[in-house]
Amino acid sequence: MKNFMDEKFLLSNECAEILYENYASKMPIIDYHCHLPVKEIADNVSYSNITELWLAADHYKWRAMRSCGVDEKYITGDASAYEKFREYCRVMPSLIGNPVYHWSHLELRRYFDCALTINEKNCDEIWKITAERLQDPDMSARSLIEKSNCVLLCTTDDPADSLEYHKQIAEDKSFGTQVLPAFRPDTGLNIERAGITAYIERLSRANGTTITDLSSLMAAYKASLDRFAALGCKTADHGMDDYISFKKPDEYHADLIFKKALASDGKDITEEELTLFKSEMLYFFGKQYKERGWVMQLHFGVARNPNTKMFKALGRDSGYDNIHGKNCTRDLGYLLDYLNDNDALPRTVLYSINPADNEAIGALIGSFQGSGDYMPTVMQGSAWWFNDNIDGMRNQMKSLANLSAFGRFLGMLTDSRSFTSYPRHEYFRRILCDIVGTWVEEGLYPAEYEELAQLICDICYNNAKNFFGFELN
Amino acid sequence: MKNFMDEKFLLSNECAEILYENYASKMPIIDYHCHLPVKEIADNVSYSNITELWLAADHYKWRAMRSCGVDEKYITGDASAYEKFREYCRVMPSLIGNPVYHWSHLELRRYFDCALTINEKNCDEIWKITAERLQDPDMSARSLIEKSNCVLLCTTDDPADSLEYHKQIAEDKSFGTQVLPAFRPDTGLNIERAGITAYIERLSRANGTTITDLSSLMAAYKASLDRFAALGCKTADHGMDDYISFKKPDEYHADLIFKKALASDGKDITEEELTLFKSEMLYFFGKQYKERGWVMQLHFGVARNPNTKMFKALGRDSGYDNIHGKNCTRDLGYLLDYLNDNDALPRTVLYSINPADNEAIGALIGSFQGSGDYMPTVMQGSAWWFNDNIDGMRNQMKSLANLSAFGRFLGMLTDSRSFTSYPRHEYFRRILCDIVGTWVEEGLYPAEYEELAQLICDICYNNAKNFFGFELN
Amino acid sequence: MKNFMDEKFLLSNECAEILYENYASKMPIIDYHCHLPVKEIADNVSYSNITELWLAADHYKWRAMRSCGVDEKYITGDASAYEKFREYCRVMPSLIGNPVYHWSHLELRRYFDCALTINEKNCDEIWKITAERLQDPDMSARSLIEKSNCVLLCTTDDPADSLEYHKQIAEDKSFGTQVLPAFRPDTGLNIERAGITAYIERLSRANGTTITDLSSLMAAYKASLDRFAALGCKTADHGMDDYISFKKPDEYHADLIFKKALASDGKDITEEELTLFKSEMLYFFGKQYKERGWVMQLHFGVARNPNTKMFKALGRDSGYDNIHGKNCTRDLGYLLDYLNDNDALPRTVLYSINPADNEAIGALIGSFQGSGDYMPTVMQGSAWWFNDNIDGMRNQMKSLANLSAFGRFLGMLTDSRSFTSYPRHEYFRRILCDIVGTWVEEGLYPAEYEELAQLICDICYNNAKNFFGFELN
Repeated sequence: MKNFMDEKFLLSNECAEILYENYASKMPIIDYHCHLPVKEIADNVSYSNITELWLAADHYKWRAMRSCGVDEKYITGDASAYEKFREYCRVMPSLIGNPVYHWSHLELRRYFDCALTINEKNCDEIWKITAERLQDPDMSARSLIEKSNCVLLCTTDDPADSLEYHKQIAEDKSFGTQVLPAFRPDTGLNIERAGITAYIERLSRANGTTITDLSSLMAAYKASLDRFAALGCKTADHGMDDYISFKKPDEYHADLIFKKALASDGKDITEEELTLFKSEMLYFFGKQYKERGWVMQLHFGVARNPNTKMFKALGRDSGYDNIHGKNCTRDLGYLLDYLNDNDALPRTVLYSINPADNEAIGALIGSFQGSGDYMPTVMQGSAWWFNDNIDGMRNQMKSLANLSAFGRFLGMLTDSRSFTSYPRHEYFRRILCDIVGTWVEEGLYPAEYEELAQLICDICYNNAKNFFGFELN
Repeated sequence: MKNFMDEKFLLSNECAEILYENYASKMPIIDYHCHLPVKEIADNVSYSNITELWLAADHYKWRAMRSCGVDEKYITGDASAYEKFREYCRVMPSLIGNPVYHWSHLELRRYFDCALTINEKNCDEIWKITAERLQDPDMSARSLIEKSNCVLLCTTDDPADSLEYHKQIAEDKSFGTQVLPAFRPDTGLNIERAGITAYIERLSRANGTTITDLSSLMAAYKASLDRFAALGCKTADHGMDDYISFKKPDEYHADLIFKKALASDGKDITEEELTLFKSEMLYFFGKQYKERGWVMQLHFGVARNPNTKMFKALGRDSGYDNIHGKNCTRDLGYLLDYLNDNDALPRTVLYSINPADNEAIGALIGSFQGSGDYMPTVMQGSAWWFNDNIDGMRNQMKSLANLSAFGRFLGMLTDSRSFTSYPRHEYFRRILCDIVGTWVEEGLYPAEYEELAQLICDICYNNAKNFFGFELN
Repeated sequence: MKNFMDEKFLLSNECAEILYENYASKMPIIDYHCHLPVKEIADNVSYSNITELWLAADHYKWRAMRSCGVDEKYITGDASAYEKFREYCRVMPSLIGNPVYHWSHLELRRYFDCALTINEKNCDEIWKITAERLQDPDMSARSLIEKSNCVLLCTTDDPADSLEYHKQIAEDKSFGTQVLPAFRPDTGLNIERAGITAYIERLSRANGTTITDLSSLMAAYKASLDRFAALGCKTADHGMDDYISFKKPDEYHADLIFKKALASDGKDITEEELTLFKSEMLYFFGKQYKERGWVMQLHFGVARNPNTKMFKALGRDSGYDNIHGKNCTRDLGYLLDYLNDNDALPRTVLYSINPADNEAIGALIGSFQGSGDYMPTVMQGSAWWFNDNIDGMRNQMKSLANLSAFGRFLGMLTDSRSFTSYPRHEYFRRILCDIVGTWVEEGLYPAEYEELAQLICDICYNNAKNFFGFELN
């Protein structure tokens, strides 16, 4: 029997151990997609207790608590910080097999040197140990990032954002980690929602332009893209709710639809109009990203805000979203084909929230490869959100290996709002080393350590660096 | 090499063995969803041969025989009981890897103390051993239930049912097992089928009411619900064929549609009308279940009666149904949201026949949790029907653990028409203990046996007891 | 640690080794579905270098190279044979975990007695060894087939084909392998494509008939079927792109639609018309196949030619196709039911390109069984195309075992355009033996070697022989 989460955690054989200890664990982290609040990095915030750090904003943990039947009072409600943490400890044993169980224990070990099992019995001791540790100045937001060996991270930013905090961080030479913006234009694409007119107003102001039609909208976006690029941005990200649908872009009608939305504040925009507008804009953005050498990330398949009651109470991103379930590979293929056919297909990463899509995506990316620079053009992203668990990661990686070139895989990202989420990279790397080590142990791949070391370092670090074109050593 | 199906069957490590032997195997069975014929329990029927017991009504075994190319004569036809059993033995080796292979051998071992391998060679000996054993009075329907340590079971009953046999059983103190009705209103919801008028007539009579419109229909159902509740009913079950579609309930139109169906005996009811009527009724039933503290079970995704020729010959539930294949998570989410938003969401269990839906359901249930009583509100049910096999159960349990709180899982049910189906609980429990034991052996969970014992006993028994609110020690 | 791809490759336990060495490895190969160019067999072509043999026509290898970002110049372009092979070697290590990695190494071992690892370092040595070896006359197309112990293969042939090469091969008694045509009527069914009129013209000529309407079309097809049958054809194959949709056949309208297509050369045929025409024709073909005792193979779910740019450059079947993603189990069920209800359901094999359909298909086939001859009527085919990998094959086999009679499985086919693709049968057989051996080692099936040997030989050879009715010893 292996010890609980010791140094051999998730490593089932010697080759896996060697690969992890000698190579994977030593590589720096590039966190190319996360939702860290950039202001908190600029302000270098610190925390007075574990609840502030863990439970104030992390909807993964909220969801886990709700699944155990914890009252909302102890999740987002007015219970005390200690009470919330006590509830978290109390239900932790029921989360057996859940990644939140492992992540919480990893975070406790890596950031607090505390190997206690999280449960009701140990709650008070953990509360005390973590509270003491958090008084240390090296537990601030920036310190947590640096001690995690994260050398570069991309936040998620709206085109209307001033990027003032990114500027501030870039100018502060005392912080060793690159904090780059990533371009996320979702709000301006959802022209069927009330508030779109005010948003476009905001986008105008941010770029010192006046937006009245499609062409001035595109001009404003170009200004945004320039502002992002000036701060080192290398990637855009589209959160495409529900499923991807695509119609042949048509500038004339897209312009009419956009003006209608502006005039009505999103009222009466039909589903067809929305698809047409978005298709035109994806074509526009694709061209822009390609010209600028950026990577386009497409996240799709999420059913957003499915619980009306809790959406009214807590708003978006509060841990209620789920999987839409409709496969949209065909339309996604039409989109990629149109972009490709019109010299508008940038390097692209596809993430579906539904693991049942793994193989369809693994096959789809193979239809748009052959860059000539020994890199993929379209890649499947790592197991996303609900799939960030041992089975989900294994399945995504094995599917990718079966269907594509695993050696070109871009590895892990946290997609997280938490400053202590970097052990998810450790989790991923251990699983990665175990998959590869097991292949070697079973005689499915030669035990040539030079090649294996290259492979592991590529997937952990080099491939993302090169694919996105980050400026790093 | 392990011996064939010995005491370590399905247990791959020491921790798994300890958990199974010391805890799981000792827990009583609550079979909260089955299709046992209640009259046969009331009559305490007995069997003169293994064919009567095994092959007279179990469509799982019929399907397995057909898959091996056995002629229908030896399945539902006029061949002799011995001939049918001989065919069953003959094709058994071809069922390698099929759960029916394991179930049949488990049933032979547990009820007949016979460890013979089922094949043509052993057919006569097994026939003889079982025939002798079946003469014993302790092999009657009730004895089989009791010796399986099944302390409570829920049958599946129509709202128009008189429940006379449930009453009879409840009054008979010689039988230690609670036999509760479960409310299954499917027939009355399928208003597009010929015969609906006669059915509504029957529902009227059963409740001493007159049904002419939606409001009198609801009144009749309330009377049915009262009659069921009086006999200890704690759960309703909806068999939702094909896929779930949902429209915003609308009492006015639902009433018109119902009256149209009554007048035409289901003729010309459009798909849209059917959806609207069913949506209204699900809202009505949801409210009723919630008020009464019942659990609502939703089974969906089955393509019923796909073989017209055999449907004409044998009718429903004869082993021909299959998987519809269309994912309906989004509409299911709309249904749950509407109920939740209108204080009509009871404790609910979701079962999809399509294992490709596992993760979508695991994510969906997380959108409707947070009861405050440390129990889930919406749960995924155990692997259902075609998924009641080693891989299907493992995948469902691991998916649930990845996405929700595995410690709150409700465990197994037989969903069976057979009095010797209880070894399916043993099958499940062994797989459960092996999953948990393997997590511990691999260092993914601490080897703390007190917590582990609690977990196993909860999943095998306590959670179902508490979730459904059964009155048991 | 096991050695890389040694004699125990893919065999994880002793029982698996015994089953593979003593039984599976000794069975001849029936390759009942492939795309070998029959003219090359007739001409008994030989190859001057490994690029000609491996990279001239195999779109699996092209796709793998593109996925590694290799320039098209080195794939289908004008680079030299050596340069192309060097690129193949160069990127091979990135294909870790991909079946192409294993197939390439197996082919090198089995046909060239070369155990070198394929990579840039070994490129020149492999190039030299293979070039020398290919000068040997026993490395011709026919020799490769014979030394692979392939005793029968079915090519894929259009109804308009003259079958002259099949005749030529059949008459040449020096070649020991049966080369049968298989009937693939896809081109004539896609009446919505330009060129259909010319194709129908070609079909007329091939059969010496005049086609002007549905009834003369059917007469021509019957003549084709007769010509195929005369050369020993036992199976037809339908490549059903995208997904299967089915409408109740209607001869009157199908005739009108066909005449419209003939007149317009496929212009303005609506999707509904296409479905109606195809449904009528599937009914016609089903009846024909059933009468003739042929097996109908249905391959579906492929999104064809998704990359317009490369389709224009390279045409069909050049490695760009992918998975459509829409589940069509329900319409497939309607099709099978209609055929069954009208005595037109031949023995049928179903292949979906989407592994997420495995269970839906495994359940569907169970709805149309009970032949009475101890054989299935409808079977799931082996893991197809993108799923021809360790995980894909394991999942398909375990799904089939869970849901049907694994002992009746038809085993492997290459579906390949390559004369060195037979090691895919070895790959399959090793995985098969490992699955069965593991069941035995884990006590899930008795260690009775007589039954196990029968099972393995049935799945590797006997079942296909009997199901298709091939005339072999």
